[in-house]
Amino acid sequence: MQDSKSVGVVIPQYVQIDKPLQLKSGLSLDSYHLVYETYGQLNAARSNAVLICHALSGTHHVAGVYADNEKSVGWWDNMVGPGKPIDTNRLFVIGVNNLGGCHGSTGPASIDPRTGKHYGASFPVVTVEDWVETQAQLAEHLGIKQFAAVVGGSLGGMQAMQWTLDYPEKVRHALVIAAAPKLTAQNIAFNDVARQAIMTDQEFYGGNFYAYDTLPRRGLRLARMLGHITYLSDDSMAAKFGRSLRNGELSFGFDVEFEIESYLRYQGDKFADLFDANSYLLMTKALDYFDPAGSYDGDLSSAFRVAKANFLVISFTSDWRFSPERSREIVKALLKNKLNVSYAEITSSHGHDSFLMTTPCYHQLVRAYMDNISI
Amino acid sequence: MQDSKSVGVVIPQYVQIDKPLQLKSGLSLDSYHLVYETYGQLNAARSNAVLICHALSGTHHVAGVYADNEKSVGWWDNMVGPGKPIDTNRLFVIGVNNLGGCHGSTGPASIDPRTGKHYGASFPVVTVEDWVETQAQLAEHLGIKQFAAVVGGSLGGMQAMQWTLDYPEKVRHALVIAAAPKLTAQNIAFNDVARQAIMTDQEFYGGNFYAYDTLPRRGLRLARMLGHITYLSDDSMAAKFGRSLRNGELSFGFDVEFEIESYLRYQGDKFADLFDANSYLLMTKALDYFDPAGSYDGDLSSAFRVAKANFLVISFTSDWRFSPERSREIVKALLKNKLNVSYAEITSSHGHDSFLMTTPCYHQLVRAYMDNISI
Repeated sequence: MQDSKSVGVVIPQYVQIDKPLQLKSGLSLDSYHLVYETYGQLNAARSNAVLICHALSGTHHVAGVYADNEKSVGWWDNMVGPGKPIDTNRLFVIGVNNLGGCHGSTGPASIDPRTGKHYGASFPVVTVEDWVETQAQLAEHLGIKQFAAVVGGSLGGMQAMQWTLDYPEKVRHALVIAAAPKLTAQNIAFNDVARQAIMTDQEFYGGNFYAYDTLPRRGLRLARMLGHITYLSDDSMAAKFGRSLRNGELSFGFDVEFEIESYLRYQGDKFADLFDANSYLLMTKALDYFDPAGSYDGDLSSAFRVAKANFLVISFTSDWRFSPERSREIVKALLKNKLNVSYAEITSSHGHDSFLMTTPCYHQLVRAYMDNISI
Repeated sequence: MQDSKSVGVVIPQYVQIDKPLQLKSGLSLDSYHLVYETYGQLNAARSNAVLICHALSGTHHVAGVYADNEKSVGWWDNMVGPGKPIDTNRLFVIGVNNLGGCHGSTGPASIDPRTGKHYGASFPVVTVEDWVETQAQLAEHLGIKQFAAVVGGSLGGMQAMQWTLDYPEKVRHALVIAAAPKLTAQNIAFNDVARQAIMTDQEFYGGNFYAYDTLPRRGLRLARMLGHITYLSDDSMAAKFGRSLRNGELSFGFDVEFEIESYLRYQGDKFADLFDANSYLLMTKALDYFDPAGSYDGDLSSAFRVAKANFLVISFTSDWRFSPERSREIVKALLKNKLNVSYAEITSSHGHDSFLMTTPCYHQLVRAYMDNISI
């Protein structure tokens, strides 16, 4: 087994982009900034750069820890690091917080230079295409003309796909994990209930809660609780919680009774203090909007005609949010274009969250694929 | 094809039970009333009575219409009526609103005679066993010593099962449709998010919103939207709504955009004005608590040892709330006790809602089973 250590202490960096950004919505941003982290070293040929795109609640902090908080481990620290499947001994790995996020990049909680107030509800709706555009600006800033790979899970996988469509020359490999070519009605429905929970919270104030020195915690908590149900598989919830009672016996009341209730409420409470409600709306909207085949009458293979990248597509058996069937749709469209695609459906009980787990054959697969990328 | 008509105009009836009711919670009710409807005629031998048990949001109004509102069709009017699968030309069919409900039976919105105020949050948590006890009181009031059949879907099916356990002599046939022997962690999780939505609504006032002349509409609306997602199958949502846009194009905003959002919000709004929030909490709690095997170390067949009824168990292929696998657990437990059980898994795309639909082979099956019941 290879010697695996964490990347260690990392320091976020910022880039200010003063070039106007034309958004898909028709609106534009005069300027914006992005927070990002890098791990490993960019080689002389600048041919070993790998971009990691985060998902709904993800951040630029992909791996390592912060000096002042050893518990602040990056969300994909098990995947990215020296000797890990995405090997920072060999690769230069970049994590960036997307526009509209709430971890340092320009977003609803940022101050709008035009008004001097928080963007709040006036922050424009952003799409996956907009994000790729900003990530391309970051690449330019770092002197990277082409990525060895663009990697992402879930919404991150959608960004990886979009890279191959918008910048076919700039991405050699795309790793599309636990993703889908577009959301189903059921996916959109869950997102809309989450949004409505936030937007009907009396402390949301139409998105301008900053001015009232409050947070729409109730709504964001509900949104997160609901999200968690969709991230876990029925079986894993049964195995982990089943019908276990918190206090050993029925209470005939409405406080926490079952362990699953305790878990969800804990997750919800934690999240409500950490994540910006407006960012949550924007992230779910970007998910809903992603639909490359939409401009091609629903024909995904037509959408992928421009792509040149090599693909690794991965799905997980128990993922019912973005099921293996969704990944197979992607693979079929890629094959129709005679693109190089490797596909694996990994047996896992962890549901949609599987892409964050360390299932051995999943990590071995990513490692093998990444090791095979010439830099 | 048989001539099928509705039962026509019906009039709800009330029964006041002044016998104290000992609840599973340990609390008791000195007295209570139940609203019910009957269709057809009780025969001289009183051998043709069929009890219909409603589900989470169901009522006593199973079939027919009210004189003052021809749109007020009973929730199972397609199943119950003259010449219908549950044939009121032959059977005496009873629908009753369960205790804790909000359609006329004693519930949280009723006035507590001890205080002169709405029960509100002080209404005791009620269980499926408690409901069967009250239904037995109703049967006694109607002079019915034994039911030819007790029928129910979802939570109603749980009541049908409970009848065979609590009153083995009083039920000849149990029709258990789209039910489960107990809820999974995922089921409980969805119920808890719904309850939290209601209970954290600032206009819930701990369940005593009656005193504030308001309703926790936001929370109840969210609960119903979420419920609807679980009642429909992924495929039927895709077929019915897909990614259709309400206004033909993306709006890059957070108002209703996709047709599925419009549908869910409409359903939520309607429900929020019609259903009592406290009743919703009670109904989901009864669902969570139902677990006959719980007193037998999880062994459902031990629980059914006392049963004598004949069973018809029905599941629907696309039901992911109470999947066919859950019905098979019931069937296995019944077979272990050498009980007469007929089982069918009906092919249907309507998800959990299938039990309310008119899928031909489903209705033919129920008709055949019911016609075969000797009265």
